[in-house]
Amino acid sequence: MIKIGLLGFGTVAGSFYDLVEENREGLEKITGQKIEFKKILVRNIGKYNRCKNLLTINKEDIFEDREINLIVEATGEVDRLASPIEEALKRGVNVISANKALISKYLERLILTSKKSKASLKFEGAVGGAIPILSNIEKLKAAGGVKKVIGVLNGTSNFILSQIENGLSFEKALELAKEKGYAEADPSADIDGIDTMRKINITSSLLFDKFFKEEEIETIGIRKINEDRIKDALKSGKTIKLIGYGDKNGKIYVRPEELEKNSILGSLKGGENAIVFFTENAGEIVIKGMGAGGRETAYSLVSDLIDIYGK
Amino acid sequence: MIKIGLLGFGTVAGSFYDLVEENREGLEKITGQKIEFKKILVRNIGKYNRCKNLLTINKEDIFEDREINLIVEATGEVDRLASPIEEALKRGVNVISANKALISKYLERLILTSKKSKASLKFEGAVGGAIPILSNIEKLKAAGGVKKVIGVLNGTSNFILSQIENGLSFEKALELAKEKGYAEADPSADIDGIDTMRKINITSSLLFDKFFKEEEIETIGIRKINEDRIKDALKSGKTIKLIGYGDKNGKIYVRPEELEKNSILGSLKGGENAIVFFTENAGEIVIKGMGAGGRETAYSLVSDLIDIYGK
Ligand SMILES: NC(=O)c1ccc[n+]([C@@H]2O[C@H](COP(=O)([O-])OP(=O)(O)OC[C@H]3O[C@@H](n4cnc5c(N)ncnc54)[C@H](OP(=O)(O)O)[C@@H]3O)[C@@H](O)[C@H]2O)c1
Ligand SMILES: NC(=O)c1ccc[n+]([C@@H]2O[C@H](COP(=O)([O-])OP(=O)(O)OC[C@H]3O[C@@H](n4cnc5c(N)ncnc54)[C@H](OP(=O)(O)O)[C@@H]3O)[C@@H](O)[C@H]2O)c1
Repeated sequence: MIKIGLLGFGTVAGSFYDLVEENREGLEKITGQKIEFKKILVRNIGKYNRCKNLLTINKEDIFEDREINLIVEATGEVDRLASPIEEALKRGVNVISANKALISKYLERLILTSKKSKASLKFEGAVGGAIPILSNIEKLKAAGGVKKVIGVLNGTSNFILSQIENGLSFEKALELAKEKGYAEADPSADIDGIDTMRKINITSSLLFDKFFKEEEIETIGIRKINEDRIKDALKSGKTIKLIGYGDKNGKIYVRPEELEKNSILGSLKGGENAIVFFTENAGEIVIKGMGAGGRETAYSLVSDLIDIYGK
Repeated sequence: MIKIGLLGFGTVAGSFYDLVEENREGLEKITGQKIEFKKILVRNIGKYNRCKNLLTINKEDIFEDREINLIVEATGEVDRLASPIEEALKRGVNVISANKALISKYLERLILTSKKSKASLKFEGAVGGAIPILSNIEKLKAAGGVKKVIGVLNGTSNFILSQIENGLSFEKALELAKEKGYAEADPSADIDGIDTMRKINITSSLLFDKFFKEEEIETIGIRKINEDRIKDALKSGKTIKLIGYGDKNGKIYVRPEELEKNSILGSLKGGENAIVFFTENAGEIVIKGMGAGGRETAYSLVSDLIDIYGK
């Protein structure tokens, strides 16, 4: 029996709960096991009006419950959850996370721990929402590997940049992004490139078997982008996108770059994300889809569950 | 130990042999097993100047060798290999094939046999060369499924259609496709839509858990395409592509359709293929890459091997 301790019950974790309930029959068939939500960690129980009997605000209720054999995490909390998660992995508890901030910062420790204990650690949802990026990496590597990877991985930046192309100032575009729900109240992780940095960090580490320190990744966001540069690009059929880049020589960075408007990365709109793998043997492989969203990201958490327990 | 009987030693099978040799160390690590090529089936031994001691023209040398536990098939032969492959699956021998003609025609029999015997049957290379299409289907289904799928899956047709856009007649475009190696001496499987039909048949069967009869799939190729239709489309920013379509109501067909020129399917060039999954919960997921080529397709055969034997 898969006994889940769910950390968080917001946009992503709540959708994960829904997806599992909606597809319980198929999932139990694929995994060959019953699935139970044992407990759910939140900070403010009053906010929720379902699963009342499962909710807790004490993380010990989950981390000290020896029956829980799978932790699914989608909180956004970073430092206070890293050690308990590491301890859980040590004990052999499997972990699925959508939390790019936590995974990017603690990647090396968590991966080494999971390798030692043979517990599974999966985080497809942390990179590119619904897009199956990480699950394709092992195969890309085994048949000769990848030379470099380039991704457009932040929907907020996409949206703002295309609004500037439409004539808005950066400030107006950011305001509109907030109104439309693309940007959060504090948009710095998006517009300063941090979000993209975390995603390209996670992807490159797995692809190139090398751990990077976040603070050593050159990260330039779009906050100070020159609006004229965008308009000039447009005139010659180009467009500026915030890209994440990584290669097998260990080069890794995030910055706005000029792309052909009608290339696959250049033509992305709004919340669309895409990543291009430049492989040694299979040409370019591109994967594109919705980079965020509750159900979209929850879909990747379910994929991880199948990767771990699928027969 | 993985003991391989290789059927065929041409463009794809030869590249598979090379990829395994080049990446042997990594593959043996991932699978936890040594890998050996035990025998290789061809028709004309004189053509080959390597692996002489492994070559055979008698299929019994492979199918009656009880040490062989994996058959990797890339011949193009259809009816004469279907039954021996089915018998091998029955005995528990795993099978990987790149042969879309054989897989499409015998899909139901082969899948049912492999389910019964619990032997693995994989054929990623049969649909879309290097593109990881089939390996993503199980997950797409488990998290709510797919409403419909549309693919541009034939590079020869892509090439010919874009040459007609450039002003060539169909005949001239076909000639050029042959010159450039896009089209074979007998191009009918490509230009009559048969190749696309096989790929969308295989994909839809897996996605929608329903077997189709090849002859019941409405298949219109590009042989009789109206050149004016293509030029008219172009004038309004559209383009004609040969698409394969399947949906969860069991609708399935192949025909030339008008697409936006700057959409992801509309902008494909030459040998590029792409497929769009319209999912229930994760929006549209697009996968794009090289649809054919020896090393590209062999890459998918290696992926299948990892899927079967990866720890
Ligand atoms: N939303 C997306 O589209 C998306 C896409 C990819 C990845 N992600 C990642 O998924 C994670 C969750 O995102 P979200 O959009 O679902 O956020 P959210 O809607 O704000 O939900 C966060 C949930 O976690 C709980 N939580 C937060 N900090 C906690 C803590 N220290 N201890 C206990 N519970 C805590 C919250 O509980 P209270 O409300 O009770 O405080 C809430 O239930 C983040 O790491 C995010 O980066 C999100
Ligand atoms: N080429 C691609 O880009 C590509 C992409 C995706 C899928 N595929 C599929 O992969 C398969 C192989 O394609 P390919 O391009 O590699 O063809 P190929 O270069 O012509 O090679 C075919 C090989 O199979 C052998 N063979 C053919 N029929 C045989 C039979 N009845 N008995 C024994 N050996 C036989 C041939 O041996 P002899 O030469 O000695 O006759 C040759 O070694 C086909 O099913 C094709 O549809 C190809």
